[in-house]
Amino acid sequence: MTAPRIVPPATIGMLGGGQLGRYALVAARLMGYRTMVLEPDPNAPAGRVADVHLVAEYDDPDALRRLGDECEVVTTEFENPPAAALDALSRRTLVAPSPAAVAVAQNRIAEKTFLADAGLPVGPWAVVDHADADPAVEYPAIIKTARLGYDGKGQRLVDDPSAMRAAWRLLGGVPCVVEQALDLETEVSAVVARRADGGFAAYPIAENRHVDGILDLSVVPARVPARLADRAVGLAMTIADALDYVGVLAVEFFVVGGELFVNEIAPRPHNSGHWTIDVAQTSQFEQQIRAVCGLELGDTGTTRPAAAMVNLLGDLWEPDTPEWGNAVTATSALHLYGKSAARPGRKMGHLTAWGSTVAEAEVRALDARRALSSG
Amino acid sequence: MTAPRIVPPATIGMLGGGQLGRYALVAARLMGYRTMVLEPDPNAPAGRVADVHLVAEYDDPDALRRLGDECEVVTTEFENPPAAALDALSRRTLVAPSPAAVAVAQNRIAEKTFLADAGLPVGPWAVVDHADADPAVEYPAIIKTARLGYDGKGQRLVDDPSAMRAAWRLLGGVPCVVEQALDLETEVSAVVARRADGGFAAYPIAENRHVDGILDLSVVPARVPARLADRAVGLAMTIADALDYVGVLAVEFFVVGGELFVNEIAPRPHNSGHWTIDVAQTSQFEQQIRAVCGLELGDTGTTRPAAAMVNLLGDLWEPDTPEWGNAVTATSALHLYGKSAARPGRKMGHLTAWGSTVAEAEVRALDARRALSSG
Repeated sequence: MTAPRIVPPATIGMLGGGQLGRYALVAARLMGYRTMVLEPDPNAPAGRVADVHLVAEYDDPDALRRLGDECEVVTTEFENPPAAALDALSRRTLVAPSPAAVAVAQNRIAEKTFLADAGLPVGPWAVVDHADADPAVEYPAIIKTARLGYDGKGQRLVDDPSAMRAAWRLLGGVPCVVEQALDLETEVSAVVARRADGGFAAYPIAENRHVDGILDLSVVPARVPARLADRAVGLAMTIADALDYVGVLAVEFFVVGGELFVNEIAPRPHNSGHWTIDVAQTSQFEQQIRAVCGLELGDTGTTRPAAAMVNLLGDLWEPDTPEWGNAVTATSALHLYGKSAARPGRKMGHLTAWGSTVAEAEVRALDARRALSSG
Repeated sequence: MTAPRIVPPATIGMLGGGQLGRYALVAARLMGYRTMVLEPDPNAPAGRVADVHLVAEYDDPDALRRLGDECEVVTTEFENPPAAALDALSRRTLVAPSPAAVAVAQNRIAEKTFLADAGLPVGPWAVVDHADADPAVEYPAIIKTARLGYDGKGQRLVDDPSAMRAAWRLLGGVPCVVEQALDLETEVSAVVARRADGGFAAYPIAENRHVDGILDLSVVPARVPARLADRAVGLAMTIADALDYVGVLAVEFFVVGGELFVNEIAPRPHNSGHWTIDVAQTSQFEQQIRAVCGLELGDTGTTRPAAAMVNLLGDLWEPDTPEWGNAVTATSALHLYGKSAARPGRKMGHLTAWGSTVAEAEVRALDARRALSSG
């Protein structure tokens, strides 16, 4: 299949107005595209950077009609756009990635089934969908709702079957998966881009650390053997091909016993790819625009030997003190998303540092973050 | 003097809403600043990227009052902001660069007088301000209005004193300068940044080609001896210090007989620095924000061995054809400013290409531009 080529000043649509949408829309605008975002929050990060902000619910029929009619392609930026909205859009215009691909990533049961069917490595898991479930996994295990989970929400660590069943009830008695807790050596993620014609590009993989289920730190290059890094990219490519995926795709992996297990798929640019803004030749957001528009993909090489990105959560929020200026240096960059309401766990911004080694970049990033909250 | 440090989410103001303002405001927003632009054109490039767009004349008292009261610093992006507007703003808030520094660059007589007084090299020139002027310059020469000239506007090449006097009348009989036409080997420009405390950073100098008085091509690194390149940066630093300049400053030079002559000063990011968006570690626009906010200046190193930037003028304007997609490759980037009305000579966008040598980058940029208009 040849890629349709969408060129400026065509209009690009975005379902969702968070920071991921903001970066992608800025990239699109600077390339010369007209941009339109559908987002109910009038103060959302992506709101005022788009040419048009449709302030309406994601499933508002009038807003979807306008988005579909005015945009030559519509993409998404968050985990859980309503399937009906994507379907409605895809009857009017190109939606990339496709609703089918997004649907796989929206439901952990569909996702794991897809991965297993495609022969991709996943850890031991089972469906939990009734009160007496006794799946064949070892404990401790993690029970997760099949839908609407992100940043560690909708999941519990459980030690035995009865705790698992109690957690299932606390999670609302909705369809869940239970995953055997693996003895992780580390976590890595691959951020790749694929065009409709199969054209493919991959960033160097990131090594990630989570705290309380939320990404805390990503470093590049990941400190894993080259064989594992190559395999992560290969697996992400396999997944993208199997989904006939168009856009930027992130795949999170567990590293266990020197092998990779797919943790989950994010059908969009990813928090662990934010380092690309400052330390890659092409940011993951410009890459998303290039991919969905069928343009030549950008250079995924790095501009510095090593990078480290740390998230800035609402917990530490005390901006507008001079200390915040300390995070803007010749070896680090501060990124804030313009969110007005800080809540614990809410991603308010991030900070990327770089250096000649991962260790140096990591120390710089952590020091810079520490300086922000010690003012 | 220590630099006042202005940190996010403080509000940064911009007088002028063209592409230069657009890029600087995007940089500021992505760092977490709130942004406000004063620009009479509701569809100007910088209009919808700022948090607040004050649609009013540059000298509108109410708009200036609001800009001055809400912004912790106000900067400018075009050649000729009204002096009275800058003065009104500076009574309410920090204006960077200062009105005095901008004023020097706004008037060719003041500019050349300043340069000569500071002992900086300028070509032979003289003031022309009456009908019988017979200044001591050799011909051919170029007569230029002292004020409101840019992109080759307000100037004429003249071959003798009587043609010069005729041109002076045609230019409106306003104060002018006449400059001896020099036998240029080439033209170069230095883009530098200076903070209030004297902190200084310089990009590699660019080599520029003008067509019909408008910048057509900039390449980096300039193909001049290292001694000349270093001297250009040194002269720009001298100028910035002499003006107590805060912000990004561009200085254009003629290269004549292996020596540099200052052509003119631009008190803002500059067209010949657009390559920094794609091929420098820090763009000149983020650097402008860092400088006026008193933050540590960014790394001015290059991310590729060589770059070439070509302007896209309204003359070739036929967008929305698939050929425009050809300009977006792994070795080139397309930038359009979102201007709706194309006119001959109007800067609608630019295109930057890169490569392992200047020659390679230049061929790529020129080929990409040619492809745009041969669709």
